[in-house]
This record gives sequence, C-alpha cells and structure tokens, in this order.
Amino acid sequence: MYEHLRKVALGEEPADVLIKNGMVVNVLTQEIYQADVALAGERIAGVGRYTEGKRLLDATGKYVVPGLINTHCHVESSMAAPAYYCAEELRWGVTTLVTDPHEIANVAGLPGIRYMLQATRELPINYYVQLPSCVPATPFEHSGSILDAEALGTLAGIPGVWGLGEVMNVPGILQGDEDLLAKLRLPGLHNIDGHAPGVGGRPLNAYVVHGINTDHESVTWEEAREKARLGLAVLIREGSASKNLEALVKGIVAENFPSSWMAFCTDDKHLADIRREGTIRHCIQKAVQLGLPLLQALSMATINAARIMGLPQLGAIVPGWQADLLLVDSLENLRPSHVFYKGREALGEALPMREPAAALRGSVQVAPFSEDSFALDRYEAGRTYPVIEILPGEIITEHGSVPGERVAELLDSGELCQIAVLERHHATGCIGVGLLRGYGLRQGAVATTVAHDSHNLIVAGTCPHDMYVAAQEIIRVQGGYTLVSRGQVVDTLPLDICGLMSSAAPEELIPHLEAISHKAWALGVSQDIDAFITLSFMALPVIPKLRITDMGVFDVEKFNFIE
Amino acid sequence: MYEHLRKVALGEEPADVLIKNGMVVNVLTQEIYQADVALAGERIAGVGRYTEGKRLLDATGKYVVPGLINTHCHVESSMAAPAYYCAEELRWGVTTLVTDPHEIANVAGLPGIRYMLQATRELPINYYVQLPSCVPATPFEHSGSILDAEALGTLAGIPGVWGLGEVMNVPGILQGDEDLLAKLRLPGLHNIDGHAPGVGGRPLNAYVVHGINTDHESVTWEEAREKARLGLAVLIREGSASKNLEALVKGIVAENFPSSWMAFCTDDKHLADIRREGTIRHCIQKAVQLGLPLLQALSMATINAARIMGLPQLGAIVPGWQADLLLVDSLENLRPSHVFYKGREALGEALPMREPAAALRGSVQVAPFSEDSFALDRYEAGRTYPVIEILPGEIITEHGSVPGERVAELLDSGELCQIAVLERHHATGCIGVGLLRGYGLRQGAVATTVAHDSHNLIVAGTCPHDMYVAAQEIIRVQGGYTLVSRGQVVDTLPLDICGLMSSAAPEELIPHLEAISHKAWALGVSQDIDAFITLSFMALPVIPKLRITDMGVFDVEKFNFIE
Repeated sequence: MYEHLRKVALGEEPADVLIKNGMVVNVLTQEIYQADVALAGERIAGVGRYTEGKRLLDATGKYVVPGLINTHCHVESSMAAPAYYCAEELRWGVTTLVTDPHEIANVAGLPGIRYMLQATRELPINYYVQLPSCVPATPFEHSGSILDAEALGTLAGIPGVWGLGEVMNVPGILQGDEDLLAKLRLPGLHNIDGHAPGVGGRPLNAYVVHGINTDHESVTWEEAREKARLGLAVLIREGSASKNLEALVKGIVAENFPSSWMAFCTDDKHLADIRREGTIRHCIQKAVQLGLPLLQALSMATINAARIMGLPQLGAIVPGWQADLLLVDSLENLRPSHVFYKGREALGEALPMREPAAALRGSVQVAPFSEDSFALDRYEAGRTYPVIEILPGEIITEHGSVPGERVAELLDSGELCQIAVLERHHATGCIGVGLLRGYGLRQGAVATTVAHDSHNLIVAGTCPHDMYVAAQEIIRVQGGYTLVSRGQVVDTLPLDICGLMSSAAPEELIPHLEAISHKAWALGVSQDIDAFITLSFMALPVIPKLRITDMGVFDVEKFNFIE
Repeated sequence: MYEHLRKVALGEEPADVLIKNGMVVNVLTQEIYQADVALAGERIAGVGRYTEGKRLLDATGKYVVPGLINTHCHVESSMAAPAYYCAEELRWGVTTLVTDPHEIANVAGLPGIRYMLQATRELPINYYVQLPSCVPATPFEHSGSILDAEALGTLAGIPGVWGLGEVMNVPGILQGDEDLLAKLRLPGLHNIDGHAPGVGGRPLNAYVVHGINTDHESVTWEEAREKARLGLAVLIREGSASKNLEALVKGIVAENFPSSWMAFCTDDKHLADIRREGTIRHCIQKAVQLGLPLLQALSMATINAARIMGLPQLGAIVPGWQADLLLVDSLENLRPSHVFYKGREALGEALPMREPAAALRGSVQVAPFSEDSFALDRYEAGRTYPVIEILPGEIITEHGSVPGERVAELLDSGELCQIAVLERHHATGCIGVGLLRGYGLRQGAVATTVAHDSHNLIVAGTCPHDMYVAAQEIIRVQGGYTLVSRGQVVDTLPLDICGLMSSAAPEELIPHLEAISHKAWALGVSQDIDAFITLSFMALPVIPKLRITDMGVFDVEKFNFIE
C-alpha cells in the first residue's frame, strides 16, 4: 500500500484520482486555499501541486471538504433499513456514522446488533457501532433482550464495534451498579458515550470519573458549559424532535467559547427530514446562521468529531489519511456534487441491501388475547383512574385523573382514549392498559411496534374491538404502523425488520409515512402531533410524569407503578 | 478504585487531598475560575465545591495547573542519570516526559533502553519511551548497537514504551527502506515522531503518508505552517542549542494561527539550563512574552501535548483523570510550590537511583592503540588535507583544506588541531583522524565519549602524546570528559553510565561541568564555544559540511568519505 501512496505523493506515479484546482478546506489550520488533492487507493497521497492522475477531476470553483461525521445516531429511528439510511447520509456528505443500535438491541439483542454491522459492512461509509449499554432501559418493562456485561463482552472489540453507547442509567452509575460498571470496563472500548440530561454539580463529577467521554443531552448552554468544563465532549444534537443546536451555538458565539472538543450529532432524525436537509450539513448551516464562523463549524463536523471519538486518520484532508471527502459548489449550500469514500465515488451508487435473518422478520410474538383485554367494564363507579395527558409540543406528560363513572362517556366523545401495551417479544401475555387524554382520536384505533425503548406493541383506541383488530393486524404483518376504523384496517405500513425498520426504499417509505399520519388525523388525532411518534413515547418510563408499559401505568415521579 | 472515587466525587467520603479555594486553570475551556479540587487515590475525583479532605491544602491565592508535558526530549543529553533528570523536570512542574533514548541505544542497544525504563519506573513522573528508530543514525560510523525492526519489535508495546522515536532517516522513508518501514508498522505504537528538517512539498507529503504524526524540527514559521497544514503536530523546540520558539510563536501570533495541535519540547537541554529556568515552564513564559495568550500557551504545554501524543487522561484537571497537577503562586512566574503526581506530592522527594547493570558501566571497549595513531608524519608535503572548520554559533561546519607541509606549523601555533574518533564499543580498532580549525586549543588534548550519534571516543589535541593520554584516561574511567595538558590529566568528569550520563548528583555534576569547560578555555579553546559540546557534534555525519567518524573524514555534501 505504502509504495504506491509514496510514489503518488512524490509525483513518481499518477494519482488514481486527481482533484485539480479545488479550494481545499483545511480544518486543521482553519484555512481555505487552492491545492490539488491526489488520491491513491483508499487514501489521500498528496495535497499540493500535482499533475498526473488516471482520473482527472477538475474542481475549479469547487471546495474540497473532509467527509462529515455524525457522532451519535440511532439508525432505527429513521425507520429505513441500514443501507437506505446510509444512502441518505451519504447524499449530504456524511461519510462516517457513529451509531448506537439501542432500538434493535431492545428487540433482538445481540443478533440485532450483528445485523446492523453486517448490513453496513460493504457500504461506502464508515459505520461504527457503540454497544448499547442500557438494554432494557428500565426494569419496569419487558424488552426483547437483556444485555448484561457478559453478553456485550462477546461483541466488544470486533470489527466495527468502537465503544460503549450512551450510558443512560445515571442512577446506576452513581450507585455503583456492578454490571453497569463492568460494561464500562469491557476491553477494546475506544470511547464511552454519556447521556446525562440535566445532571450537574457533584453527581456530574461522579458520573464523569468513570471515564465517560461525551454527552449529547445538553439542552441549555449552561448545562453544556458545565459538562465541557468537566471534560465531556459536548455533542450538539439537532434531530427531528430534540433540537439543541440553537441554544448551544448561541452560547459558544456569545462567550467566544473554545469548540475544539465539540461536535454535531442527530440522535434521532426522520428519514424525510434527512432527505430534505441532511444531518450534519444542516447542523453546519444552522450554526453558521447563528454566527459561528464557518471554519469552526466545519471543524466540529469533521476533525473535532474524529478526535473526540478517537477515530484515526479521519476528518481532515491529510496525506496518508482515508480518502473520504466531498466536493461542493458552495460552502453556504454544502450540497455535495461528489462524495468520495476510501477514494471511490460513493454518490449515486445503489447500495446493497442485506436481508435480515428470518428471526428479525418475525419479531412479534404476542400471547393470545381478546377484545376483553381492552374491555371498558373495568372502570368502576366511585373509583378514580389515572390519565396520561399529552402536552402538545412536549415530550413530558401530565398526570391526570378521571372518575370511573365518566370513562365511557369521555371515550365516546373522543376526549379520552384507551392505551394499551402488549408485550410482544416473548409472548408473556403481559398487557398494561390505561387512559390517554389529548391524543384526539375520535374513533378507531392506532397501533405500532415502535414504542421506546422496549418496543412492545402499543395500541390506542376508543373501542375495544378496533383496538383488538389493530393489534391483530400488527401481529399479522409482524410489526409496523396500522390504523383501524369501525373494525376495518384503514392502512398498514409494515416495519418488517424487528417491527422498527422497513425494507422498502425511501421513495416508497417516505410518502407512506406521510400518508398514514394524515389518515390518523382524519380519525381525529390532534393535528399538532404525529399519531405514531407521540404514541411511541408513551411507553418510555424514564420521562415524567406518567407512562404506560406492558406491566401497567407507571408514575415516573414516584418511580413505580400505579396500583 | 471507582467506588472511592465516586464517593469522593459525590461528597460522601472525604477526599484524600482537598485543594481548597484555588484558581483552577481549565485548559479545556480556556478559563480560570475558583474551585476546589478533590483528589482520591491517584485520580482527580471532583472539581467544584468540596469541604472534606483527609489532607486539606489551602490554595487561596494560588493557581491549580495541570502537570506540564515535555513532548520530546533526550534525557541522556543532560548528562544526568534518569532519576536526577526527572527531579529537575519535576521541580519546574513537568509531570510527563516523552523521551527518546536514542543516545543510550546507540551505545548499549536494547539493554540501554531497558535501563532507562527501569531507572524511571518508580519515579513520580509519567515516563514514556519512544523507540529510537534510527540506530545507528548512519551507516558511516560504528555504533554500539544496530537496532533493526525485529530488535525494536521485542520492546514494542511493553509498559512504558509508547511509540516510535524521531524518524530521522528521511531518505530511507522516501526510498521505501523495508526495514525502516517495518519499524513504522510495529504493533502497539501509539505515535510516530517525525524529524524532517527543511523538508517540504512533495517529499513532505510522501513522508507524512506513512502515518508520522509529529515534527519538532521546524526552524522557520513557514516550515512549521506547511507541516501543520499536512497534519503534522508541530512540537515547538526550545533546547539549549536549538531554539525555535521565537520564530514559530511569532508566526502563530502574527497569523492568529490555530495552535490546538501544537505543543512544546526541548529535544536537548542541559542540566544547568533546566535547573535555572525549567523546560516547558520556560517555553510558556517565552511564548507569553512573545504575545501568545497565556491560556493558549498553557494548553500547548498540557492538553494539546496529551492529545497529540495520544496520552489518555492526562493534561487537564478532569474528574477521573490522573491527579498530576501543580500549585503556583503566579502564572507569570510559574514556579510550583507543590507538584502532585498521581495524587501524591512529588516535589522535594529524594528519587531512588537505579544502579545500571555492570555492562552499562563498562561501555568503553577500545582496541589497543598508541601515540602513533595520532602521529604527524602522515601529512605529506605536496598533498592537500581536508580541514573541518568550526563556525562560532553554528552547528554546521565549513569544508576547509591545508597543504601537508604546513600542518605541523599550524598545530604548533594552535590554529589547527588534530581530531580523532576511536571506535569504542566493540574494540574494532577503527580510528578516523583529521584536522580541525577554529577550536582554539593551543596545547594539550580534550576527549569525550559524548559524540553524536554513535558516541565513539572523540579526542582533539595539538600533540600526539597528549591525545594518547586523554584517550587512555577516558578508557580508564570508562567514559566521560577529560582534559590533558603536557602529558598530565588536568581534570576528568566521569560519565559512568554508557559514557553519556553521570551517577553524580546535580549539585556535584553542574559545577564540575562548568569548571571543566572553563579549564578547557584556559587551554585555549575558543571562549565562544563549549569545548565538549562542540566536539560532540563533530562526529555527526548528517549535518553539513565536513565531519569525522571512526571510519574517516566525511564529506556530508557528497555523502561519502574523503580518501
């Protein structure tokens, strides 16, 4: 390898690809200058004046930018299969993904993680996996898999596995949970991602002492600054729902704060949003609009990310480093005309889809149930029942209540609906049933297997029969989204891979996602919420105030179930 | 470990050492603010508000600074034994040394490197060894050892060995020397130090493609900038002889150039200079005087150095990181009142001396020779002889000449002296003899075993008898410095460890070094040169124009011996 590289660098052999006369963005020195970039095999051979290339690419008027790096993302949240997700990222210049397969791991455990690795191994993108540290997310639900340190250890250090994924169990760290700490000490970890929303002061110190390197949960500038002071790399998150970039970048700009140990990430971003604006490209654009110098933003998107995550020879245009780079016509627009991954063009290439194993396609295993599971006669007059109240535009819920004698009337009027979570991994028969306000559904039922973090089968509805039909439809297609009205299926979007991701191409998936959400609005679901995404968060028992799992209605503030 | 650390961080257990009310220098965020620093065992447990400590240290009015890092130094060049050298570094706040035992490796090979590791293992300092990549430095001399890739490989990855030392053989890299390239690919290397003085353009690209990370040889700002652009970390050198800091820092300041991938080093610095002003501390001070912002200079001396060299959890005051830190009363003066290494005070501690193995004490093996080896009757009338001409204040020499018939007369007048290099490692009997101008010696002889890079026995003198006596004296003491006048030894400073370092304490060594140099002036050696240091560079056949090795007089420009 080195001989060809060296000879191209010396000008003794022609480059495999010679990018002539481009303006090179040097994120190491924060400069932009004209230079030729000679590629040899998978690597950059030279930056300077070069004349001979087997392929000559005239980059006059273009900028040569290092490939962008998304430092933290959950591919499953896009609902696209890995190959399709990667293609969307590549379209906007991301050549390196640091992913946390937390969602699929909750459904399918180690085989789920292995699938994400296998499905991306041949793709023209650097795909790093951080091992999910918290599967299941809480003990208050039944997930498809339980990954303890020993289980995770079987994957630590294998090709593609880079570090440990977001350590969400902050109380576990602070209390010295042995198994959790053992995960942090697994051999072969290059990086440990943190996840400490709102944690500061002494608890943050106690969290950081364990060698946790990053955090992407800062919502306010003050929170981000405190974390930076204590050595955490601040990964500025801008996803579809969680948008922290404005607050954090405004802080950086206002205080002229050093950003060399900060980078960008998306965490969760929907496919349609990625297709429209990209991920890291959108972060750069927005940061620049907020006053961050362009080169500083580009550095955060490239070299800072590589250094923070410890990724060698990525993130800048340096001789000997991997030839991952973009050509763009404008640094404002940042739309790549060419994307190189390991020296070959990656844009427009049809990416190979790797079929998942049958087990990942048959992930919905529910014990027999009937309409009675959702029957209304459980609500007794004279008793009061808890109600999960959706707040528009918020992920937290209110903790409401309703007298038993009024339930039927409020279900009829559409003010309330029932919500149920059916354990769907191991057919345990666990079903939690509760009441939901603010969803808007006037008739019918909505069901999905995307239900954070254990991804059980969640169904909301106004009548037991429709809820039954919806749940059965989801079982029939082995996961996905469905709408039922008056006993009939209105529409179903199968998510055939673990009930989380679709094998369909984005051209099919994106319009279907849009259409099924519109149809949910037609059934009365409030127009200011997404029927399925909102539902998917109702089962997450770590966010206040009231949630529901397959084990019952859960009071997050008291951290226990309601009897 | 983590339990105590976590509990101290949470304030549930008292810190082992609590540094109260100091102004903490945060090199991550470039801020200085008041905070308590709680230490637990070898690590920092918390930065913030803490109240309880088994030992309380009131740091009111003091600054808490991360331990300084010297990114490239040759301990042997100080002539102090490792323990004494480290004590001098610690005195001025250096808690991490990245060393290249190139000198001792040239004399004693792998056992020499092992000695440096063993002698420092128990010292309160982080002592990292970069494996010397170029032993011998050239094929034009006989060194004590030849370290090929296989030999170096026996040390790669062992505790304390961090990376590969300065790759000086630039032509070897550019020509694809197989053994040299194999050294770059040794397993377990974290870092590869470069050494590419004056190299730029395509050759620099071809040098860098091999994964070489750093360079400490930039003399001009333009050279440093080009290297930074191509991804090399610029290690700004400020030693006793090579002083590059002013030129480089002026460039950084003038161009407001990013310095986050730059650090400081000394390369070669004498013991007396270290004792007087420190190493990295002096770099910071000088950089600030030249206009570099203090926090930027402090970052280069700490966190930048750690990140460049890939040293984990060093270089900043971060919970969980190694508790290496200094207390100073003034950021201008930067004289530490306390130095902590792994949480314990390292200042004033008597450092244990590790006795070298007998072989390292008996390193001078010279084949029998006589006064005839230096006889003057070799200079024939009618022939012209090459003369090495010393230029005051320069390390390069001029290539002069003299007619044979004038040699005796010019030796008598002190204008010329003879210079000889005797192979001293394996008693091969190789002796190179030549003529030297500009040294000033009017009578007697000067001899030393410090003679870069092979450290053979070098002797300069005006009469064969004195040269013989001086060489014999060096053999008697098994290495060191000596002065001879009229057949009598005037003074000898033994360098008992490999003929390079003294086991004597600095209190004895520094005055002796000063005294013997003064005595050399009394014999006529020019006052503007150091008799021994100047002599030690006469044998280095890589610096123009004329040198001498045990194999003869060497024309560096023609890169061959003079017949």
